[in-house]
Amino acid sequence: MSKFWSRKVKEAKPYVPGEQPEQTDVIKLNTNENPYPPSQKTLEAMHGAINDDLRRYPTPTVSDLKRKIANREGVAPSNVFVGNGSDEVLAFVFQAFFEPNETIKFPEITYSFYPVYSNLYDISFQKVPLNADLSIDVEGLYDSVGGVIFPNPNAPTGVAMALDDIERILQNNRNQVVIVDEAYVEFGTETAVKLTKAYPNLLVTRTLSKSHALAGIRLGYAVGHEDLIEGLERIKNSFNSYTINRVSLAGAEAALEDETYYSHIINQVIQTREWASGELRSLGFNMTDSKSNFLFVKPARTTARILYESLKERGIYVRYFNQPKIDGYIRISIGTDAEMKILIEQIEEIMST
Amino acid sequence: MSKFWSRKVKEAKPYVPGEQPEQTDVIKLNTNENPYPPSQKTLEAMHGAINDDLRRYPTPTVSDLKRKIANREGVAPSNVFVGNGSDEVLAFVFQAFFEPNETIKFPEITYSFYPVYSNLYDISFQKVPLNADLSIDVEGLYDSVGGVIFPNPNAPTGVAMALDDIERILQNNRNQVVIVDEAYVEFGTETAVKLTKAYPNLLVTRTLSKSHALAGIRLGYAVGHEDLIEGLERIKNSFNSYTINRVSLAGAEAALEDETYYSHIINQVIQTREWASGELRSLGFNMTDSKSNFLFVKPARTTARILYESLKERGIYVRYFNQPKIDGYIRISIGTDAEMKILIEQIEEIMST
Repeated sequence: MSKFWSRKVKEAKPYVPGEQPEQTDVIKLNTNENPYPPSQKTLEAMHGAINDDLRRYPTPTVSDLKRKIANREGVAPSNVFVGNGSDEVLAFVFQAFFEPNETIKFPEITYSFYPVYSNLYDISFQKVPLNADLSIDVEGLYDSVGGVIFPNPNAPTGVAMALDDIERILQNNRNQVVIVDEAYVEFGTETAVKLTKAYPNLLVTRTLSKSHALAGIRLGYAVGHEDLIEGLERIKNSFNSYTINRVSLAGAEAALEDETYYSHIINQVIQTREWASGELRSLGFNMTDSKSNFLFVKPARTTARILYESLKERGIYVRYFNQPKIDGYIRISIGTDAEMKILIEQIEEIMST
Repeated sequence: MSKFWSRKVKEAKPYVPGEQPEQTDVIKLNTNENPYPPSQKTLEAMHGAINDDLRRYPTPTVSDLKRKIANREGVAPSNVFVGNGSDEVLAFVFQAFFEPNETIKFPEITYSFYPVYSNLYDISFQKVPLNADLSIDVEGLYDSVGGVIFPNPNAPTGVAMALDDIERILQNNRNQVVIVDEAYVEFGTETAVKLTKAYPNLLVTRTLSKSHALAGIRLGYAVGHEDLIEGLERIKNSFNSYTINRVSLAGAEAALEDETYYSHIINQVIQTREWASGELRSLGFNMTDSKSNFLFVKPARTTARILYESLKERGIYVRYFNQPKIDGYIRISIGTDAEMKILIEQIEEIMST
């Protein structure tokens, strides 16, 4: 604790990301990265941006990328905001639409960055407990004072919410902004983007980190009514004029034009998820019905902590959340078929010792 | 104005960056970019980072880059913070070390992002008028309530402050953090980094945008006592775990190891600056003694606004600040010799019409 720290620093409760081991000979199933590489066209476009123009600032308006996102999502460029990863987009959201004295609502078990942002920006929050089956309590998110945020599908449970339920949440928060964080939506959940046309209080956030295998370039975006987008732009332009570098811009633009490749790897992840969940169920594991690129599983014949530690000793990283209500589970990002086979073999070995 | 906007959005006064024209056939001397490209080694390192690993998150701790910066600056890695451009570093600084009800001080004429950050984070500020020669009033920055921030050399004047004066400001703000924003320091000013060892209240910020011709990769850093660095890390980790993408990291690491090349282009910019200032003086222009990669000049026989507009019509972009006390000046980024010759020819033509 330093006398030079602001109150904000003293009270900060920073987010702790999944471990990023420096060794390369591990099987890394702990941070929900895509097991497949970005497409060749994406990489080529990034190579093309490495030239003398790097001496110049990138575009502050990112209008070309906004146009491509708008085409993909069926909206106008004025309905699109772009950020340095969807975490940056979310940080701007908390400043743009939530107020310190107006309590927001989010699920009790959810992306653990939400309370971190809330603490940083002095926003009070109410955690709404999940239902017994670990689905989100839809009615519990009605009638917020300050706004609502939740991922769909939820993390780390992977459980999806139907669009009808999202619409009911929007209808019961007409004067508040509702954020649907769709980081994992491409792995089997219907997007709420179409609802942005009827509901000016809806903002949908996205990332290229998982679906487009581009966690390394840091690119997220948001879609919503142009008033919401303008609010985000005003915060961004009070923070950093140029948040996206030239090479990431080129990669994102190319990736969004290469849907054939990315649909293919997304489908592969889904197939592997279904196969792996069958295998784990046959070992006696319980799990949620994940619509994401990870499984949220309750081990049989051992505890979650022991399984997490045993797997780590064997060079397999999964994620264990040492917190009430979910400390019986581990979250396993979907790897390649080969990686998942090794995982299941190792789990069988651990269970038999 | 939307009912969904927070008070912060409603009151935001976003920064307006210099124009980034889409045409490529202009001479762009308006945003202080380096006229020379990054080094071949830098570009090669960036190409090398474009591979399948982009599917993975970058390092959240950026420890390799911190080590390289530490070596260069003669400090420990724990004395280094890295951000997505020095604008992001400065935004974190305002949250980490300044408090809403403790008025900070900065020069009246200075980087115009400081009041923008202040507004965003509810920090009150006192603008300290410059001396008659446009140098910073050193004693005016003594005894702040909440902290001090100024660029050295100052922008947009280009005027440098001696280390003795910086030390006096530090001695007269023992309980406040003093930020020395060294965005332009490499073009002829002595860095204050050595003072960080004696003054735990000093934080020095830097950018690779100008000296290292890398505005397009967005990379800034800060050097100071490890308590200050920890304060910045706590804000950053409450905002975005991974602020620097893999390709920019690779470029920055390579650039910091290629000092021969960058010293050469920095010296070239300095030589061109001295030549161009001589030419403009001989045309009757007044100017400050700029130690930066730009000139801050008061035109002869025409107004700053007319000169700015006339140059723009001729495809030459310079920066004009339409604000009291400096609306008689234009800021001209130093280009190549060829660009500066064209500039001076065009100014002569404009003056003769």
